[in-house]
Amino acid sequence: MTAISKPPFENILITGAAGALGSVLRAALRPYAKKLTLSDRAPLGAQRENEVLHECDLANRDAVFNMMKGVDMVIHLGGAPRENTFQVILDSNIVGSYNVYEAARQFGVKRVIYASSVHAIGFYESAQTIDANVPQRPDSLYGVSKTFVENLSRYYYDKFGLESVCVRIGSCFPKPVDRRMLATWLSYDDFARLCVRALMTPSVGHMIVYGNSNNSVNFWDNTEAAYLGYRPQDSADKFAAEVYANTPLPDPKHPAVKYQGGSFAADGHFEDPKAS
Amino acid sequence: MTAISKPPFENILITGAAGALGSVLRAALRPYAKKLTLSDRAPLGAQRENEVLHECDLANRDAVFNMMKGVDMVIHLGGAPRENTFQVILDSNIVGSYNVYEAARQFGVKRVIYASSVHAIGFYESAQTIDANVPQRPDSLYGVSKTFVENLSRYYYDKFGLESVCVRIGSCFPKPVDRRMLATWLSYDDFARLCVRALMTPSVGHMIVYGNSNNSVNFWDNTEAAYLGYRPQDSADKFAAEVYANTPLPDPKHPAVKYQGGSFAADGHFEDPKAS
Amino acid sequence: MTAISKPPFENILITGAAGALGSVLRAALRPYAKKLTLSDRAPLGAQRENEVLHECDLANRDAVFNMMKGVDMVIHLGGAPRENTFQVILDSNIVGSYNVYEAARQFGVKRVIYASSVHAIGFYESAQTIDANVPQRPDSLYGVSKTFVENLSRYYYDKFGLESVCVRIGSCFPKPVDRRMLATWLSYDDFARLCVRALMTPSVGHMIVYGNSNNSVNFWDNTEAAYLGYRPQDSADKFAAEVYANTPLPDPKHPAVKYQGGSFAADGHFEDPKAS
Amino acid sequence: MTAISKPPFENILITGAAGALGSVLRAALRPYAKKLTLSDRAPLGAQRENEVLHECDLANRDAVFNMMKGVDMVIHLGGAPRENTFQVILDSNIVGSYNVYEAARQFGVKRVIYASSVHAIGFYESAQTIDANVPQRPDSLYGVSKTFVENLSRYYYDKFGLESVCVRIGSCFPKPVDRRMLATWLSYDDFARLCVRALMTPSVGHMIVYGNSNNSVNFWDNTEAAYLGYRPQDSADKFAAEVYANTPLPDPKHPAVKYQGGSFAADGHFEDPKAS
Amino acid sequence: MTAISKPPFENILITGAAGALGSVLRAALRPYAKKLTLSDRAPLGAQRENEVLHECDLANRDAVFNMMKGVDMVIHLGGAPRENTFQVILDSNIVGSYNVYEAARQFGVKRVIYASSVHAIGFYESAQTIDANVPQRPDSLYGVSKTFVENLSRYYYDKFGLESVCVRIGSCFPKPVDRRMLATWLSYDDFARLCVRALMTPSVGHMIVYGNSNNSVNFWDNTEAAYLGYRPQDSADKFAAEVYANTPLPDPKHPAVKYQGGSFAADGHFEDPKAS
Amino acid sequence: MTAISKPPFENILITGAAGALGSVLRAALRPYAKKLTLSDRAPLGAQRENEVLHECDLANRDAVFNMMKGVDMVIHLGGAPRENTFQVILDSNIVGSYNVYEAARQFGVKRVIYASSVHAIGFYESAQTIDANVPQRPDSLYGVSKTFVENLSRYYYDKFGLESVCVRIGSCFPKPVDRRMLATWLSYDDFARLCVRALMTPSVGHMIVYGNSNNSVNFWDNTEAAYLGYRPQDSADKFAAEVYANTPLPDPKHPAVKYQGGSFAADGHFEDPKAS
Repeated sequence: MTAISKPPFENILITGAAGALGSVLRAALRPYAKKLTLSDRAPLGAQRENEVLHECDLANRDAVFNMMKGVDMVIHLGGAPRENTFQVILDSNIVGSYNVYEAARQFGVKRVIYASSVHAIGFYESAQTIDANVPQRPDSLYGVSKTFVENLSRYYYDKFGLESVCVRIGSCFPKPVDRRMLATWLSYDDFARLCVRALMTPSVGHMIVYGNSNNSVNFWDNTEAAYLGYRPQDSADKFAAEVYANTPLPDPKHPAVKYQGGSFAADGHFEDPKAS
Repeated sequence: MTAISKPPFENILITGAAGALGSVLRAALRPYAKKLTLSDRAPLGAQRENEVLHECDLANRDAVFNMMKGVDMVIHLGGAPRENTFQVILDSNIVGSYNVYEAARQFGVKRVIYASSVHAIGFYESAQTIDANVPQRPDSLYGVSKTFVENLSRYYYDKFGLESVCVRIGSCFPKPVDRRMLATWLSYDDFARLCVRALMTPSVGHMIVYGNSNNSVNFWDNTEAAYLGYRPQDSADKFAAEVYANTPLPDPKHPAVKYQGGSFAADGHFEDPKAS
Repeated sequence: MTAISKPPFENILITGAAGALGSVLRAALRPYAKKLTLSDRAPLGAQRENEVLHECDLANRDAVFNMMKGVDMVIHLGGAPRENTFQVILDSNIVGSYNVYEAARQFGVKRVIYASSVHAIGFYESAQTIDANVPQRPDSLYGVSKTFVENLSRYYYDKFGLESVCVRIGSCFPKPVDRRMLATWLSYDDFARLCVRALMTPSVGHMIVYGNSNNSVNFWDNTEAAYLGYRPQDSADKFAAEVYANTPLPDPKHPAVKYQGGSFAADGHFEDPKAS
Repeated sequence: MTAISKPPFENILITGAAGALGSVLRAALRPYAKKLTLSDRAPLGAQRENEVLHECDLANRDAVFNMMKGVDMVIHLGGAPRENTFQVILDSNIVGSYNVYEAARQFGVKRVIYASSVHAIGFYESAQTIDANVPQRPDSLYGVSKTFVENLSRYYYDKFGLESVCVRIGSCFPKPVDRRMLATWLSYDDFARLCVRALMTPSVGHMIVYGNSNNSVNFWDNTEAAYLGYRPQDSADKFAAEVYANTPLPDPKHPAVKYQGGSFAADGHFEDPKAS
Repeated sequence: MTAISKPPFENILITGAAGALGSVLRAALRPYAKKLTLSDRAPLGAQRENEVLHECDLANRDAVFNMMKGVDMVIHLGGAPRENTFQVILDSNIVGSYNVYEAARQFGVKRVIYASSVHAIGFYESAQTIDANVPQRPDSLYGVSKTFVENLSRYYYDKFGLESVCVRIGSCFPKPVDRRMLATWLSYDDFARLCVRALMTPSVGHMIVYGNSNNSVNFWDNTEAAYLGYRPQDSADKFAAEVYANTPLPDPKHPAVKYQGGSFAADGHFEDPKAS
Repeated sequence: MTAISKPPFENILITGAAGALGSVLRAALRPYAKKLTLSDRAPLGAQRENEVLHECDLANRDAVFNMMKGVDMVIHLGGAPRENTFQVILDSNIVGSYNVYEAARQFGVKRVIYASSVHAIGFYESAQTIDANVPQRPDSLYGVSKTFVENLSRYYYDKFGLESVCVRIGSCFPKPVDRRMLATWLSYDDFARLCVRALMTPSVGHMIVYGNSNNSVNFWDNTEAAYLGYRPQDSADKFAAEVYANTPLPDPKHPAVKYQGGSFAADGHFEDPKAS
């Protein structure tokens, strides 16, 4: 973690704060702000000192604007966390993220850290090594929504100077449980380290960074994000024996093996219920 | 124009067919299909032989699905044609385009030609020459919606094999009227030529091509799209004297001059009326 | 054609001189050398003034060495012209070309113009635009042998200073007869123009150039070979109407349509008769 | 030429105006400014209407500052035109150009068009095709001074916003007289066309462009400068027969043939007389 | 080493198994297959449990086909290990490798790990850093044969889906003994680690990877092969003092120093005995 | 440090030897040469065994030539160490460096290690990661002079074979004292390590390498210089807490924060006193 002696920020807003990643950051970012504003549709648990809780839907513009006052940094994790119907993706990820960015602009937020995803580029092959400048190749409607926010955030930087770091998170779970996650796994602690670096780096402009731990197997070249100084401390490698023992030899031609997006690249997409 | 002796396609759907570009294609594509299906929210005028007219809103999923039956090729021009409130952009360009692509997938359409825009990359500087692989840099919410559809179409190709040609149209008007349009102007005839090539090229996969005429001044390197065989026949050059006489010496540092997106890159964005 | 007033070379050897391309060059290169040495396994017809004829197999080392004396430039067209059994490819294209290069080295030849082929890179997709520096992707054993000679010639330049121009010929026929050839067609006259430029350019080192005419539809970016000054004068475009009328709408997913190598990329390979 | 109806600029300063290129521009730029300021160490001939003449040495800072008042555009041709002792290069090209740029900055000049040279990149091989972003490889002290001014002008743009177009001139002479000039030749008229485009382009930032005519043989890829809209109208090709007849077959390994800089790359450098 | 609990493969064939590298893998790969098939022209020593031995020449097609039945993975090390006459290279490396690949295809082998070499790219300069996508530049006929197999394996993947990992081995010896090997040295253990990763990686397609240990001095950028997860554990650095003490200061202009291929790049090539 | 058992070089000249960096190398390079020649305008202190001291100005050609006799390697640190008037930069950095290179050429020096600077590329943004091939973007007249010597050294290599390693030094001080230096800091020991590697590498040609320690935060991709084998052993990271505690939260839009050159990019430039 970046060493600090007193909170550098006034008020950090974390959206999606009730989820697993939100809980990690709720604890980890405590030293970095005088106040933590936490938002989720789900219950956020007991309010701790210096916390402000907002149970709200990001698709509700007024609610989002209401909680943005006084915020200087945003960690935007909120939204549908996996593939869903287009309507759900539209409301949660597209409209919700627009509300977050537009409110951030109007209230003078300095920077947004956005939880993008491997699924923004999930149709690249596993055997390819990609950097952050390759054209997006989403593997799902979920992935398309991630590219939408990456591009939206670029627009807000180019036009209004609102900085963003988009973190393309691989697989942020307690531990890797399949062979693909030996490449994509991001430990909770490394995720927190990466977010701290994204907050503390002096000038980020608009930046895209891949989020995984120090895994020997890797899809990504993070050279372009060297200025962040992110150095993962964990590694999927120590789980490799367990993963190999528990999972079968893969078929190299199956889309879930061949593509970086894994099962997202292999599955069809949800029919919108009202569409039938 | 590509020479043909009989209509190679069964049924070409043109969305946004009542607009200026739609009218151009309505005439130009007549020889290429046994049937032309034309769609717009605005009146489409008298129905001609072999035409089917649909006055409908693309945000209306049922209407879109209804007109897609039997279609083998789609020219997708429909949607808001310039910057607007986020709600309008959302309904017209994002939801509308999703409906078009999802219907195309379900009905086995072979290929979609999508009217993307310079505004998908409008924050590159005029003095830069860019190709189709550079990261998108939209200059407006309108531009963000164009990048959304480009990425959505990539997803439909990567996952379902539905081919697309995304044409980043510069300035498709009767003639260039300012100095920026000496670079971006696309004549109506060249636009039709480009669409015909996008229809006739044997295998396009997912392709992005810039759409301007044979102008001496140029922002774009179309080398990547050489397989389309698009050769513009018109040029903004013949209007140069008129444009120079009618327009003042520009300020090189003004955003509308410095950036490829022109005034879109310089303007702020619309406040959604209901947001106040 | 490059203008000349007297033969700049002493003795140009053309291998494969009895074939269609060899016949074209036999006539076209006459003004460029005091003597033309012509070689083929097939009969070479009547000997004309200043010609030396060698009916021989390039796999015969002694025969190749015998005819190389006094030669200063080589046009190497000889070998199997399409897919065949490995044994035939090995003898005709690999052993034969080694003999040509080794003899050229030992007798101080200045430069070799080698007839490579689209099939050295035939597994790139038609919708991709490639330059001469992309990794080779042969579509056949024939194509593999073409990459062998390209690399062999690079070795002879890097180690011994023997210059080469490798021309990746598309489809060199009287006229284009299918839709793929609207991209790959190289007229006989343009082929001759390209060979003359390869002979006359002051310093070529080791160069790879794509060989097609001025076709609107194109797979290739020849920018890297700009120093050759090759400007094709013919175009497949004038045959487009005829080709469209005579050929069906292609299936974009068929390998012969999807890949630059056409049917070579789609076909399986020959069983060596003695292998069964 | 760019069509204009009245002079768009107030006062264009041409340094080195007494030389061949200066004389070309003195005539060609007359319609583009209300006043032409002409500077040279050599006599500038009779003063024409709307001209101001300054016979001065660019190494004389006061003289340079004196003539820069009221100037809005500068064409900077002045300095030693070929290899010389280091002292001469230092005074004429390095100190002189610094004076021009510093005066331009202090007097609010909008843009400088700088006559850079092929000799800034003369150690690339003739058989290589280079664009404007390759690292500089000067072939002489003269060439080093050209890279100095290119970098100086970049600094003045990055720090002070003073725009520059650096034109890497090939061989600007009445006609090509050797085989290398079949690639590098820039006709006087094309040089004037290029300078006019560099003046008239709305926003150039800092740009490097190669300057040659529409020659079939070419070292350079000018794609990056597409925004200038420079389209040469002349070509070395029409002189090819004459050049071939008058010049011997070149040795491909001689430095003057192998490198783009020609004889500059082959020659040693001048001993500074006072240095012995 | 990748942790495993039971043999993931049925039958791994190692060609060239009697050599130094073959012996390393014979021991190291034992846990990875139920059966090891070992082939060489030289004696293979005593047969161990679960081993099948084939003393045969790879140029003998029937012998190769005979031992390929039931094999699912191939480690192809066999062939001439250094420069030789063209006839030897042809038989051992070109014909032999064709037989291996064709048999692998016909018997449904899943993947081939091929021992390519630094000599496939030996004419790049030592001071250059290259990745796996640069054009091949062989430094010897031996190196040309390595490029042949790299391209042949690409063909077998593109057309038939037979996966390959081509390992460009630097200097695989007990320890580095000259200054160049401080860059190119690959320890036996690291070679085994790399082969295990090439076997165990879920989906490799066609991949080229450089093979050296964790040496501070390095020619190669292995970023493209990040998915393999190869992390060398040894380093030439610990031998540096010994090497410096035992070897003279090199001449930077000598081809054996200047080029990555070392002495292979400096030496002439073998005369085929029967060729005189 | 590279292990050595006896001095590999005859006579290493260090210019600017009285400064902080010179003092570091004066001690560190002692084992690498039989004689150390030390030069500076400032006093060099007591002469130690095997040292030769020259108090002189590098702008004095005779003095430079006088001390170059018998030198085989040069470490060129001398010159103005920060922004100054143009006249000072001209004399100290441009004329002085020319004298060093010209003397080195005339006396057969093998290699020059040149202390270039981050200020040669200081106008790249901090959030960009750049390698050594990007176009130079100096942030000051000082930086322009660094690009001058980089290009001058390239010329001396291309034309005369005089090798150079240009080290773009970040911030070589006892410890980092601001947030930017967490990226740019180069410890004295690492600087010495890098110089030793630049001396000992067998063949460097002309190379540019970035000089910083093993800092987590980084602007630069040193992949191109992998052959040097430079592995920093120190890191700014251990000073991070102290730096964060002592420095305020930066403004991301201030030029000194936004650009790699820091305050050099933000400051205006010196008026030459005599220019007023």
